[in-house]
Amino acid sequence: MVLHEKTLNSKKIYDGKIFRVRRDRVLLPDGSEGYREIVEHGGAVAIVPLVDEQVYFVRQYRKPVEKVLLEIPAGRLEPGESPAACARRELTEEIGFWPRRLQQLAFFYSSPGFTNEIIHLYLAQELKVKQAVKDEGEFLDVVKMPLAEALKKVACGEITDGKTMTGLLLVAGHLAAISQ
Amino acid sequence: MVLHEKTLNSKKIYDGKIFRVRRDRVLLPDGSEGYREIVEHGGAVAIVPLVDEQVYFVRQYRKPVEKVLLEIPAGRLEPGESPAACARRELTEEIGFWPRRLQQLAFFYSSPGFTNEIIHLYLAQELKVKQAVKDEGEFLDVVKMPLAEALKKVACGEITDGKTMTGLLLVAGHLAAISQ
Repeated sequence: MVLHEKTLNSKKIYDGKIFRVRRDRVLLPDGSEGYREIVEHGGAVAIVPLVDEQVYFVRQYRKPVEKVLLEIPAGRLEPGESPAACARRELTEEIGFWPRRLQQLAFFYSSPGFTNEIIHLYLAQELKVKQAVKDEGEFLDVVKMPLAEALKKVACGEITDGKTMTGLLLVAGHLAAISQ
Repeated sequence: MVLHEKTLNSKKIYDGKIFRVRRDRVLLPDGSEGYREIVEHGGAVAIVPLVDEQVYFVRQYRKPVEKVLLEIPAGRLEPGESPAACARRELTEEIGFWPRRLQQLAFFYSSPGFTNEIIHLYLAQELKVKQAVKDEGEFLDVVKMPLAEALKKVACGEITDGKTMTGLLLVAGHLAAISQ
C-alpha cells in the first residue's frame, strides 16, 4: 500500500521555547483528506554514563507528569550543535563529568504519532571529573547505582522514563554482546 | 533537594483532537520563577503480539517524521477506557487478532520533559483471528517477523520507534527470564 500523506496546507498554532505546534491538512492514501496535529521539536540526546558497572542518573521534577523521575542525563540539541557535542555538554552540565569515550547506541523517535522529537542515545565511559555548570532553571540530584539494580528498577516499574528504559536495556544488550 | 515546582498560573494555548497545549508559570526550587510548556496527552497503549517467536508489526506513515515506520500495534486510550481494553481493541483494529492472553509488561512516559503522555506496554499471546475493523484515517500494512530478526533491527538502527524498541527489548528480557 502507498502510505505517504501529502501536505495540502499547514497552519502554525504555537511558537514556543521548547517546541512549536502546527496542524497539517493532508491527502490520505484513499484520496480523502484529514488533519495531523504535530509538535515540532529540535531533538535531544540522552546518555548512559557508565563507570565500573555503575550508572549515573539524575532525579528531576517533571512538571508535565507532576513527579520526580529517575532518568539518565539528557538535554535538547542547541541550534547547529552535533548530537555528540550535545551529549558531552549535557553530561558536564548535569553530572560534572567529561566522557573520554562516547559511543552512539541508537537514535529513536519518542512518539512519532504526534511529534518529530528524535533522541540520540549514547554510552559514555572513562569519565573525567569536570566542574558542573548547571543550566539555568534546571534543578536536579545526581544518583549513582549499579547497572544490575537499575535494570531491576526497569523490570519492576520504578524507572518509568522511556529513554532511560531504552538506554539501560540497550547497554545491557551491548555489554552482553561484547562479553560473548 | 526539594525539586517540586508549584504552579502559579496556567494558560491554555491549544485544544486539539490528539493533544492540548498549555504554558504554566511555576515557582522553581530556588524561589525564582519560570515557564513550562506542556503537551497534554490522554495516554496510549502499545502491544507486542507474539505467536511462535514471531512478532506482528504495522508499517505506517508518520506525518510528524515524514517517514514510514515499522512499529508494534498501538493507539490512544478512549475516554474512560482501561489500558487492557484499549490494547485488545487496537490489536483487533490494526492486525485483526484478539488476544486470549494479555500481560502488562510496563508503562512509561514517552518524553516527560514536555508531555504527560504515558504508554502502557503489553505482551499479547494466544491470538485468535478476528475481522479487522480499521480506524478511520488510519492506513497501515501488517508485517510478521521473527523476534530475533526484530531485535537485530533494533540493534542496527532499522527500528527507530521508541515504544517498539522498548517493547521488543522487554519481551526479550521477559522470555530470557522465564526460560531460566
